Amino acid sequence: MDRLDQQIRFVGEADLLKGVLRQTMLAGPGRRENSAEHSWHLALMAVTLAEHAPPGTDIARVTAMVLVHDLVEIDAGDLFVYADEEQQTRQEAAERAAADRIFALLPPDQAAGFRGLWDEFEERRTPEARFARALDRLQPMLANLEVGGGTWKEHGITADQVLGKVRLIEDGSPALGRFARDLVDRAVRDGLLALPPGGATAP
Amino acid sequence: MDRLDQQIRFVGEADLLKGVLRQTMLAGPGRRENSAEHSWHLALMAVTLAEHAPPGTDIARVTAMVLVHDLVEIDAGDLFVYADEEQQTRQEAAERAAADRIFALLPPDQAAGFRGLWDEFEERRTPEARFARALDRLQPMLANLEVGGGTWKEHGITADQVLGKVRLIEDGSPALGRFARDLVDRAVRDGLLALPPGGATAP
Repeated sequence: MDRLDQQIRFVGEADLLKGVLRQTMLAGPGRRENSAEHSWHLALMAVTLAEHAPPGTDIARVTAMVLVHDLVEIDAGDLFVYADEEQQTRQEAAERAAADRIFALLPPDQAAGFRGLWDEFEERRTPEARFARALDRLQPMLANLEVGGGTWKEHGITADQVLGKVRLIEDGSPALGRFARDLVDRAVRDGLLALPPGGATAP
Repeated sequence: MDRLDQQIRFVGEADLLKGVLRQTMLAGPGRRENSAEHSWHLALMAVTLAEHAPPGTDIARVTAMVLVHDLVEIDAGDLFVYADEEQQTRQEAAERAAADRIFALLPPDQAAGFRGLWDEFEERRTPEARFARALDRLQPMLANLEVGGGTWKEHGITADQVLGKVRLIEDGSPALGRFARDLVDRAVRDGLLALPPGGATAP
């Protein structure tokens, strides 16, 4: 099979991501979001919010990273961000196996490049990966606000749990971190997000 | 409203593209494709098929272009690629009005930049726009093959009509153009695509 045939096969396999459903409810169509349209939304956010990444961040790399970051869900499915540790560990193994299979559809040099993007996203060490992860955390928060609570209400998620994820946003972009922290405050005030059983949220 | 608030408003508005349905049927989920996941697929194709763009093509610009190219459909809806001329003219006016409204949600400098990307895609003069348009034409062809004819069968589209679109693919990428021409031959051979009433396809 020549390079182009391999690339087209990969692109065809990627089509299946449109059938992988996430927990997030969409305000407009009133259905769950799929991982392909979620990935588009993150890529659009990367381009739109580029100026809030730390200086020198390679936004084209961030965009490529968010475009491929969820492809492993074709095999592994999507796991809710607040799943427990045992589920997370099982999911990580399934995603690694999926990455081995799916990126290997590409010509070897390109397979290595795309796998590198995926590993980088998972490892969260570079400014690009940290910014990409920040967008991946911020997007479902915006969606939950849009539908009046969404998965927060559905799963009884409390403000301190959300603030745990906000730390990942701050880590990728101080400006988006501040914005997300304000969102949590507003969601609590508006009754969309409950305080933990103890009462106050962590500072 | 500060810059970030404007950008987040734009990103929130963009969410509505997930509810805009295209004609293309998806093999996996067995439903029509929406314009947001279509845009993701094109962006992934831009990154994957980059080497088939003419030398010097700015792939980050192609990616940004395909990410925003369908946002106007939030107001204007999607028009089938084989719609008649009168419908196309009406659609163009509706899309321009939509571009005026939607990109203006952004801070002025960014609104101009995004509008520039959209105009460039529509005008098809730069190598980046031509490659982006080639991807936009190739993707539904791949989808139709995947579902055994799809919109070609549904709307009685013939091989010469598809070859008219293949010229746009050749214009953006000779390699993808050859590939698309082979696809049409194969689709005719496999009975997925009919010959025109006259018989043979144009050379």
